[in-house]
Amino acid sequence: MRHLIDFGDLSRREWESLYARASRIMDNPAGFIDACRGRVMASLFYEPSTRTNFSFQTAMLRLGGTVFGFADPSSSSVAKGETLKDTVKMVSGYADVVVMRTPWEGAAKAASLYSHVPVVNAGDGGHMHPTQTTADLTTITRLLGRVDGLSVGLCGDLKNGRTVHSLIKALAKFENIQFFLISPRELAVPDYMRAFMRENNMRFTAVTGLEAVIPQLDVLYMTRIQRERFVDPLEYERNKGVYILTRRKLDRAKEHMLVMHPLPRVDEITVDVDDDPRAVYFEQARYGMFARMALLADLANQPRLDRPQAVEIGTTPVCRNPRCITRTEYYLPPLVKKNGGVDCCAFCDAALD
Amino acid sequence: MRHLIDFGDLSRREWESLYARASRIMDNPAGFIDACRGRVMASLFYEPSTRTNFSFQTAMLRLGGTVFGFADPSSSSVAKGETLKDTVKMVSGYADVVVMRTPWEGAAKAASLYSHVPVVNAGDGGHMHPTQTTADLTTITRLLGRVDGLSVGLCGDLKNGRTVHSLIKALAKFENIQFFLISPRELAVPDYMRAFMRENNMRFTAVTGLEAVIPQLDVLYMTRIQRERFVDPLEYERNKGVYILTRRKLDRAKEHMLVMHPLPRVDEITVDVDDDPRAVYFEQARYGMFARMALLADLANQPRLDRPQAVEIGTTPVCRNPRCITRTEYYLPPLVKKNGGVDCCAFCDAALD
Amino acid sequence: MRHLIDFGDLSRREWESLYARASRIMDNPAGFIDACRGRVMASLFYEPSTRTNFSFQTAMLRLGGTVFGFADPSSSSVAKGETLKDTVKMVSGYADVVVMRTPWEGAAKAASLYSHVPVVNAGDGGHMHPTQTTADLTTITRLLGRVDGLSVGLCGDLKNGRTVHSLIKALAKFENIQFFLISPRELAVPDYMRAFMRENNMRFTAVTGLEAVIPQLDVLYMTRIQRERFVDPLEYERNKGVYILTRRKLDRAKEHMLVMHPLPRVDEITVDVDDDPRAVYFEQARYGMFARMALLADLANQPRLDRPQAVEIGTTPVCRNPRCITRTEYYLPPLVKKNGGVDCCAFCDAALD
Repeated sequence: MRHLIDFGDLSRREWESLYARASRIMDNPAGFIDACRGRVMASLFYEPSTRTNFSFQTAMLRLGGTVFGFADPSSSSVAKGETLKDTVKMVSGYADVVVMRTPWEGAAKAASLYSHVPVVNAGDGGHMHPTQTTADLTTITRLLGRVDGLSVGLCGDLKNGRTVHSLIKALAKFENIQFFLISPRELAVPDYMRAFMRENNMRFTAVTGLEAVIPQLDVLYMTRIQRERFVDPLEYERNKGVYILTRRKLDRAKEHMLVMHPLPRVDEITVDVDDDPRAVYFEQARYGMFARMALLADLANQPRLDRPQAVEIGTTPVCRNPRCITRTEYYLPPLVKKNGGVDCCAFCDAALD
Repeated sequence: MRHLIDFGDLSRREWESLYARASRIMDNPAGFIDACRGRVMASLFYEPSTRTNFSFQTAMLRLGGTVFGFADPSSSSVAKGETLKDTVKMVSGYADVVVMRTPWEGAAKAASLYSHVPVVNAGDGGHMHPTQTTADLTTITRLLGRVDGLSVGLCGDLKNGRTVHSLIKALAKFENIQFFLISPRELAVPDYMRAFMRENNMRFTAVTGLEAVIPQLDVLYMTRIQRERFVDPLEYERNKGVYILTRRKLDRAKEHMLVMHPLPRVDEITVDVDDDPRAVYFEQARYGMFARMALLADLANQPRLDRPQAVEIGTTPVCRNPRCITRTEYYLPPLVKKNGGVDCCAFCDAALD
Repeated sequence: MRHLIDFGDLSRREWESLYARASRIMDNPAGFIDACRGRVMASLFYEPSTRTNFSFQTAMLRLGGTVFGFADPSSSSVAKGETLKDTVKMVSGYADVVVMRTPWEGAAKAASLYSHVPVVNAGDGGHMHPTQTTADLTTITRLLGRVDGLSVGLCGDLKNGRTVHSLIKALAKFENIQFFLISPRELAVPDYMRAFMRENNMRFTAVTGLEAVIPQLDVLYMTRIQRERFVDPLEYERNKGVYILTRRKLDRAKEHMLVMHPLPRVDEITVDVDDDPRAVYFEQARYGMFARMALLADLANQPRLDRPQAVEIGTTPVCRNPRCITRTEYYLPPLVKKNGGVDCCAFCDAALD
């Protein structure tokens, strides 16, 4: 692995090797105190994301590395009057690894074409956020000993959640997972995700209530339901209680079940759940830091390329996704890839006409 | 000591041990270059305070530790859509010590209930700022050899100054201090502070002029008088010169007297005083850094709690102080403590009805 | 050298010693990984300048040092309610070296009078930016083996560019340079720069076209032409193509010619030039980092002054340059220096009446 742009780029074997390193770090953090000594991480957050930013920063610092960058575009003039390519050329001249968060889909992929050093995607719009997935899988593997064969409940807004879709795609690499998709009908998993699950022989059951299925779960992954996602606000008011996890609902859950949440939560998990040993959402954030340590210990130590391979110079965008990075950075090459037989933009994965 | 929330929580013995460590650091900074190696400090400044922020950061860096965080709420999305508890759970999963500055009274105390690692109060509204006091006491002890038995002049706005009130309270731990309270009548020390001083058998004289008492002082602690604190602006204009320290007024001071100031100054000390050897306000800032090094060398190396003790979950605020953290974070436990026999809020120290 | 305020303060010998250190660092970066261990750099950017800021930060981090500071005034309250002197006294109590970028001309010089530690000018308004010049000279020396005897083309807006004027002045320290000044007549090098070049026996030819002279150049230094610099916008439209470097124009250039640019570029160099081996503007940024490492490895390790020498206290500004630091910081001493026989402000170099 040279860059981490999409969790799907990892083979199961690469994931296992990454987890094994995370595991060694968790068992013996002191042994990694100099793993990135002398290495510098650029942290380019073109939109604020405090949790992800802090997690990457502390991961690098705990490896003995150092960090520079910006936390949002207002604290930087980089974004102004310069192409993404030029910024990446400059920054990858200073850094040993570049971590990028952007509102533009495909931006990390674009940066990876020009960078002299590895690029990590810390979220590119609604597209990908692979290190959230590594955090989730690290939590499950560390606490339950495996991922294969588990019953996983996904609860809340399953229509709009990037986190949930990434997790489903990642779990396709594992065996014999049973999904429970728990959501209001309005916010069910989209059709293309159902198609993906069927193609990959993933078993799933869609339900509208949490209480009935909770006793069967090994993992309950909670997400937030935003009022503004509902066409009818009354529908929201009628429904919201169903998807709130309370201490009482936990009574019927297995003793080893994990309650997970990508954070921040609003009120979808009541405060009295926090003291239940099954509530692991805060530990999950900490496991995310260890997973990022495992990633950076590898990537920040890769040799710098003096001259990355030249790529074709684009002239007009081929992708029509208005949030795609190719819509504003015209010089990007017109790269196309196949997703399930369909021609897609190699940056943002949108289907091409 | 597990957290530093209020200087009053320290016994004299604990203070002496802290100062002894600060003293060893000042004598031999190179000996502490790795005292916090591998340790990470979270610096959460919910309101900007450059001086305090820089002092804590450089303290940690000079111990070989590292720092992450935010310098004001606008550079962070942490404050949005998340309780203080959830932020502290997350951040204390990444850090070995948490330094917090907030506009809300009692916030550091609240954070300490949920944190997995030690919390340091870097100022919680108008309530407490214990490390300013450690800076002040370190300066006096280092330069005069002792605190017991000194004549201490406090000059300026003694009514509104958190710094001055904290210093008076801290000096109650010492023997035989003689105070001169130098202020306009409108800005005299409040009644409850006078009551405190009497209860603790502290000797004090209130005067309205600086020049008459300056020859008796070992320490002259200057503070700013803000025009807007006066009911009558003319009264301000008539008075302001009296409380400005000039080189001429220094002529009658003892040769070893210390001129101190918490900074920033505006015009309450004229620039020509800076070159007088008695002017130690810039050194005071530097001593503050050493005092914070002594604090962090201890706290950042304490073992992490995997599971802090669960606390009661509150439902309605019991405190009526509108700036108290309990007014917005409803889940906080309804903790009460006695201050001089009176029931007070355990977060902000306001008297309860 | 105690401070770096103006490249002109360096003797050729001092420059050569600085370059020799940069060269040793580039040959063996791992040998300098602890050169600033335990040292702390203050990075005070009173106006944003991401490139310069990142370059200084990574320079310090790669020497094993650490960094604190602010990236623009909005993220700091330092600028408010405090003189530059007081800020510098405080910050130089925490740091081992202070790097300053300000919009005020002469600010770094002013800071150096009060600082306990070395001060580096990272740009003071339109006045000086000495480390850009060290980056430029390091690039040329490293890639061409020498500076003496080269043909140097300066192309674009030669009237307003601080970078270009600094480079010309710096090149006066070298032998036998042949300049080609390539610009529209409206944006030619100012008269005082021509006078400077004549006084220093520097050979130069002013031309309005790039293509005719490109075959003679060893270095082509490109700069941006801003539309708003032209009195007549039509003149801009007629001219702009002449000063854009394309792959085709490069065909006639020498094989070893360097294309340089201070960055950011807008469209004055087309993207297809980037893959030409002569395009070194991104490497130039990286050489800038190594040059700053060489500088900091020296300055950050100098002994701290416990008491900088007292300076005269000013009362009224003597300089009439409205952007001069002495116009707002009244206490600065009324320092005067001779530039070519003329009395000038020792802070901003403006001629005094």
